[in-house]
Amino acid sequence: MRAVDLIRRKRDSGELTREEIEELIAAYTRGDVPDYQMSAWLMAVVLRGMSRPEIAALTEAMLHSGRVLDFSDLPGRKVDKHSTGGVGDKTSLVIAPIVAAGGLKVPMISGRGLGHSGGTLDKLESIPGFNVNLSLSDFRRVLETCGCALIGQTAEIAPADKKIYALRDVTGTVESSALICASIMSKKLAEGIDALVLDVKTGSGAFMKKLEDAANLAELLVDTGKRMGKKVVALLTDMNQPLGRKAGNAMEVAESIEVLSGGGPADLRDLCLELAAWMFFLGERVKSVEEGKKLSTDLIVSGHAREKFREIVGLQGGDVAVIDDPRQLARARHTLDVTSLADGFIAATQCEQLGTACVVLGGGREKKEDAIDPAVGIEFHKRIGDAVTRGEPLFTLHYNAATRLDEARRLAETAYKIEPEKPKTIPQLIYRVIGA
Amino acid sequence: MRAVDLIRRKRDSGELTREEIEELIAAYTRGDVPDYQMSAWLMAVVLRGMSRPEIAALTEAMLHSGRVLDFSDLPGRKVDKHSTGGVGDKTSLVIAPIVAAGGLKVPMISGRGLGHSGGTLDKLESIPGFNVNLSLSDFRRVLETCGCALIGQTAEIAPADKKIYALRDVTGTVESSALICASIMSKKLAEGIDALVLDVKTGSGAFMKKLEDAANLAELLVDTGKRMGKKVVALLTDMNQPLGRKAGNAMEVAESIEVLSGGGPADLRDLCLELAAWMFFLGERVKSVEEGKKLSTDLIVSGHAREKFREIVGLQGGDVAVIDDPRQLARARHTLDVTSLADGFIAATQCEQLGTACVVLGGGREKKEDAIDPAVGIEFHKRIGDAVTRGEPLFTLHYNAATRLDEARRLAETAYKIEPEKPKTIPQLIYRVIGA
Repeated sequence: MRAVDLIRRKRDSGELTREEIEELIAAYTRGDVPDYQMSAWLMAVVLRGMSRPEIAALTEAMLHSGRVLDFSDLPGRKVDKHSTGGVGDKTSLVIAPIVAAGGLKVPMISGRGLGHSGGTLDKLESIPGFNVNLSLSDFRRVLETCGCALIGQTAEIAPADKKIYALRDVTGTVESSALICASIMSKKLAEGIDALVLDVKTGSGAFMKKLEDAANLAELLVDTGKRMGKKVVALLTDMNQPLGRKAGNAMEVAESIEVLSGGGPADLRDLCLELAAWMFFLGERVKSVEEGKKLSTDLIVSGHAREKFREIVGLQGGDVAVIDDPRQLARARHTLDVTSLADGFIAATQCEQLGTACVVLGGGREKKEDAIDPAVGIEFHKRIGDAVTRGEPLFTLHYNAATRLDEARRLAETAYKIEPEKPKTIPQLIYRVIGA
Repeated sequence: MRAVDLIRRKRDSGELTREEIEELIAAYTRGDVPDYQMSAWLMAVVLRGMSRPEIAALTEAMLHSGRVLDFSDLPGRKVDKHSTGGVGDKTSLVIAPIVAAGGLKVPMISGRGLGHSGGTLDKLESIPGFNVNLSLSDFRRVLETCGCALIGQTAEIAPADKKIYALRDVTGTVESSALICASIMSKKLAEGIDALVLDVKTGSGAFMKKLEDAANLAELLVDTGKRMGKKVVALLTDMNQPLGRKAGNAMEVAESIEVLSGGGPADLRDLCLELAAWMFFLGERVKSVEEGKKLSTDLIVSGHAREKFREIVGLQGGDVAVIDDPRQLARARHTLDVTSLADGFIAATQCEQLGTACVVLGGGREKKEDAIDPAVGIEFHKRIGDAVTRGEPLFTLHYNAATRLDEARRLAETAYKIEPEKPKTIPQLIYRVIGA
């Protein structure tokens, strides 16, 4: 194999064989293919696309670049969920305990905040003492003990993805559904799961703004997972406004505990129940999604899900006291209510801006090495379709440093579109299920 | 400037400003933009193209990455010719002396063989002692003394092009008319010339196989040169069969001397006269191309052109004895006549294969570090449209080592298409003049 020939073939819209893709990825991971050839190939992929077999081959090559976990000796189906990311998306914190409480195994490897979107690991770390950097043997031990463990990607898992992702980030080659698909699926399939529920977000706060693009990605993900012998469905869900009422790491943990305690905002609760139901269904714990939803609800009402969360937190070194009293989580020293300048209705939100506002407050990273302030965040008081009167609070900023408060405020404030008439359509929570 | 933003913009078919292109090229030449970003940008350029102003800006940025020669204090217009390359194309060796003999200055910076195509420097070096590696001050001295000097690209000339070309070669980003144009023109304009005649080849032995592609490149080259204040025309010429009767370094020098002595094959002589005429015309030495052709013919007939060649060879350290007796040039120890297997007419030649056969014999390089055998080559006995009888020689291989003789023979033999009927059309020598 000469790398330049594979680059040229892809450049000319040709197809690469499974063997060629395997060899290219292996050689790149070893360092035998230099970055400058890989980046040219990645750009050709972005602009020419890949066929389904090529994407499956790429996913598999990246998957096998590192360790593939095997929990087949542990009883119970292994299931996981992956979200493409958005603002206020804390469903992992709710559904992982629900599904583990229901008897399935959830070996969840998550990521950190990326751009305007939050990350499960950052949220978990706002629980004092919570350790997301477990060794793979500790990961296994926690999973075996309580049915769920939540960690970050280790160097052993899909190293090719790690290397390629870092390169894509600086070479303008992030925006490719083929590459996004291979990146997501190689990591998720390394978890040794039997089934995967995907939450593909679309709307102003998602990476895929257009429903059609998100649907294409969802289909690609499902197809790739199925080609690799896994049960996979994708829920196409709305991200035209934040999920739930809170964005910001500790604030989102608190809201997750609300849901696990039987409360919480309706949209967040409904989506969690739906996702957990699908996990139960794909994990063959129930006969239908409806039954899965009932089981999930029961596990919340009975307190089992919340207890499971306490167990996980405890096993991963976290302070379980926050579960009974979320006020013990980090809290920002100051709040600022921002009120509406007009009477009317919330017609739309520029949801990405709301996520960026949260980053500006210190709740996310602008550079990889930035530290996160777990306490800061935004509380949203209005959703699309809600009536608002002049002077009524739209949202509350929770902040510690006033340095960039104005910037965050301006970003969040201009994210709201207020119209005199009630909007005719309100974004639905779930648009479609793909792969069912 | 963030390189990744410029990559993304080009990826999305956007246009870069002159300043952005300047900064990108300068930063890459300095080493501040890494190869992996440049290669992603180059691939985006290959697939998305560049606008005319972008190409001009890229050419200028590459031109100014190194020294731009200035011969404005030397009397006479400075003119040059550049060919996009082919098989048996030795016109530079003929026209440089003609034009210098006619009173213009020809500061010619040439290249080496590339792929199946020969290079002027390799041909010149088959003259014992000929030094193509003059310092820029010696280049100037020879130019001043005899009106022409022939050297290779130095490290001081367009270093950005050198660095980018090496990267393109290994990243599948050679095939872009925008990049080809900037590469050619940045080097040629660094010669400090007033006018340039381009010989853009098309056909089975050219890099641009299709007339339309070659015409597009020719237009781009002419437009770019004119934007930079130079007089430029491009001749679109045929490369569906070798130019002249000989390919191979010393054999091509011998054939060039034939033309300078008033003989030589008609196609080679005619193209040389045409190219030289255009150089005289653009260099304002004559009032019309016709007059230029007459002047060129006169300079051959009078022996002045041949004398000029002797003068150049002498000044650059070469053995002038070969001019009077080309048999003193390196000659291969063996020859092999390859005969036709059928009666009929030459319908076409796969001309690139003929060039490759010459490389296989040792007349060109397969890897950059390969040594060249100046003696080997191929003599072609038949041209498209010629009648051939079974057993009659089609070509003669001149070789030293028999190691790869069979491979060369097979390549050359299968390059000929022989049909029972005389072909209806025979490729014309010059298709079009662009920019006149």
